[in-house]
Amino acid sequence: MLEPFFLLTCPQGTLRAVIGELGLDSTAQRVGDGVHEIALSDRWSLDDGRLNGGYQLSVALRALATEVPLPDPVVASASYLRPAMPGPARVRTEVVRAGRRLATGTARLVQAGPDGAERDVLRLEATFADLAATPADPVDLTVPPALPPFAECVSFGGPDAPPGAATVGRRMRYGVPALPGWVRGEPSGDPSAEFWFAFADGSDATLLDLAFVVDGAAPVVLEMGRGSSTAQLTVHLREHPAPGPLRCRTVTRHLAHGLHEEDVEVWDADGALVAQSRQLALLL
Amino acid sequence: MLEPFFLLTCPQGTLRAVIGELGLDSTAQRVGDGVHEIALSDRWSLDDGRLNGGYQLSVALRALATEVPLPDPVVASASYLRPAMPGPARVRTEVVRAGRRLATGTARLVQAGPDGAERDVLRLEATFADLAATPADPVDLTVPPALPPFAECVSFGGPDAPPGAATVGRRMRYGVPALPGWVRGEPSGDPSAEFWFAFADGSDATLLDLAFVVDGAAPVVLEMGRGSSTAQLTVHLREHPAPGPLRCRTVTRHLAHGLHEEDVEVWDADGALVAQSRQLALLL
Repeated sequence: MLEPFFLLTCPQGTLRAVIGELGLDSTAQRVGDGVHEIALSDRWSLDDGRLNGGYQLSVALRALATEVPLPDPVVASASYLRPAMPGPARVRTEVVRAGRRLATGTARLVQAGPDGAERDVLRLEATFADLAATPADPVDLTVPPALPPFAECVSFGGPDAPPGAATVGRRMRYGVPALPGWVRGEPSGDPSAEFWFAFADGSDATLLDLAFVVDGAAPVVLEMGRGSSTAQLTVHLREHPAPGPLRCRTVTRHLAHGLHEEDVEVWDADGALVAQSRQLALLL
Repeated sequence: MLEPFFLLTCPQGTLRAVIGELGLDSTAQRVGDGVHEIALSDRWSLDDGRLNGGYQLSVALRALATEVPLPDPVVASASYLRPAMPGPARVRTEVVRAGRRLATGTARLVQAGPDGAERDVLRLEATFADLAATPADPVDLTVPPALPPFAECVSFGGPDAPPGAATVGRRMRYGVPALPGWVRGEPSGDPSAEFWFAFADGSDATLLDLAFVVDGAAPVVLEMGRGSSTAQLTVHLREHPAPGPLRCRTVTRHLAHGLHEEDVEVWDADGALVAQSRQLALLL
C-alpha cells in the first residue's frame, strides 16, 4: 500500500503540507537514490484519458522538491514528450547544482511503453530558492483582473462539470462574469480569459499547486475554435499564495506554423502576483 | 586548427548558414557521439570576463541543432548554473524524442572547474520543428514598438561601445529614440525599453541568433539602479527573421525576494513577431 507522498519522501524531516485535491492524489514512495514511484491518479484526465499537463508537472515537481536542498521552486520548465496515462509511473530526479541562493534539479517522469520499457513522458528542469530567506519587497507592475466577487460570478467546473471521460474539470471551480463563448458553443474569436480559480474540495492552493493551476484551465484558443496540446511550459512561482481563490488571466497573442503561445498570470486573494507561465502548444 | 562550426558538425549534409558575428565566432568540432568541442570566444564577455548568457545559449543550441532531426528550434529553455568563461568547452547533447512534428533534445555546456573536472555551466532543453513544413498563417495580436527609422535613432553599442573589459557591447548596435536613463547615469525608474537591434558587422540575425538577441541587451532593471544575473531563460523562436534590423521590447513587471522576471519580444524588419523570451534573474 502506498502512503501519502510527503510522509515518505521529504528528506529534511519536516512534514510539508499535504492538503487539497492535488496533494492527496499524488501517492508516491522513494524507492531508490532520487527515484520516486508514483501512482498517477485518474482524477486529472482529459477527454481521451491522457493526464492534464499541469498535473504531470506538479507531481514531478513535488518529487524533485523533496530532493533539492532549497524548499521553494521559483522556476520550472517542462517538455511534454508523450501522453501520460493514469497508473504506475516513476520520477527520476537529479540535483545538478546546489548553491547558497539557488539550487537546480532535473526530473524525468517515465512510464512503461508498449514494449514494457521505461520511456520519458515529461522532462522537467527547475530552480529552487528559499523565499523565506529574503524579504519579499515586491515591486509589481502587473494589473490583476478586475472581477466581481467569486460568489457573484457564474461558476463552472467542479460539481457542475459535465459528466464524461474528462475528470480534471471536476477538481476545480471557475468563477467568471459570464460563461465563455466556447462553453456556449459560440467562440468569441478573442483568445483571452479572466477568471477566479479554486480547488473544488475547498482546499487552498500551495506554491507547488500553482504549477498545476497555470495549465489547469481550458486553452483560450478554444475561443478561436481550435484545440491545443502543450509542447513546453515554463512557470515562475514567485510567492506562496494567501488562502482563498486565485485570480487568473490567460492570453494567447501569437499563432503561426501550427503552434501558439499562451501566457497565464495568477494573483492570490490579497492581489499579490504568485505565478506567471508561458507555454508553446500545438494547435489541433 | 578548428574549422567553422557548421562545416564540421551538420549531420544532414546540408550546410546551414554560417553568417555574421555569432556564427563565425563559435568554432567547434564534433568529437564523439553527440559531443562537440567548442572554443568559446572572448568577444561576447561582460565586465568581469564572464560570457553573456545569450551567447552561451546560442552556442549550445547550435550544437544541439546539428543533432536533432528537425531543423528549427521553436522553444529553448536554459538554466544558468555557473559562470562560463572564454576558452575550451564542450556541449554534450542528447536527443530525447524525435516525433513527426516535434523533436526534443537536451544539451549541457560544460567547462573544466578549478580541480580540472568537467562541470555544468548551462543546461538546455529545446524542442524543434520544421517551420517550412507548415504554412505560417500567422495570427498576431502583439504590437511592435513604434520607433523612428533606425537611421534617425540615437545609436549606441558597436563602435561607440565604451572600451573596457566588456566586449559584448561591441558586437551589436542599438538604435533608440533617446539614450536610456541608465546610460546617462540617471535611471528613469521605468524598467522597460524599446529599441532597434543589429549586429555591428552588418550581418542579419538568423533564427538561432535570436536566442542571443533576447539576452543581448542590458537588463532594464538598470533603470531601477539594479544589476541582474540570469538564472533561467526560456525563448520561443517563431519565425526566420527577414533581413534587416530587429525591433525589440524589453519589460520587467515583477521584482520580489531578490528575483525579477524580464520579458523580451522581437519583431523583424517586416513587422513579424520572431521571438518571445522570459527570464528569471537574480537582482544584484
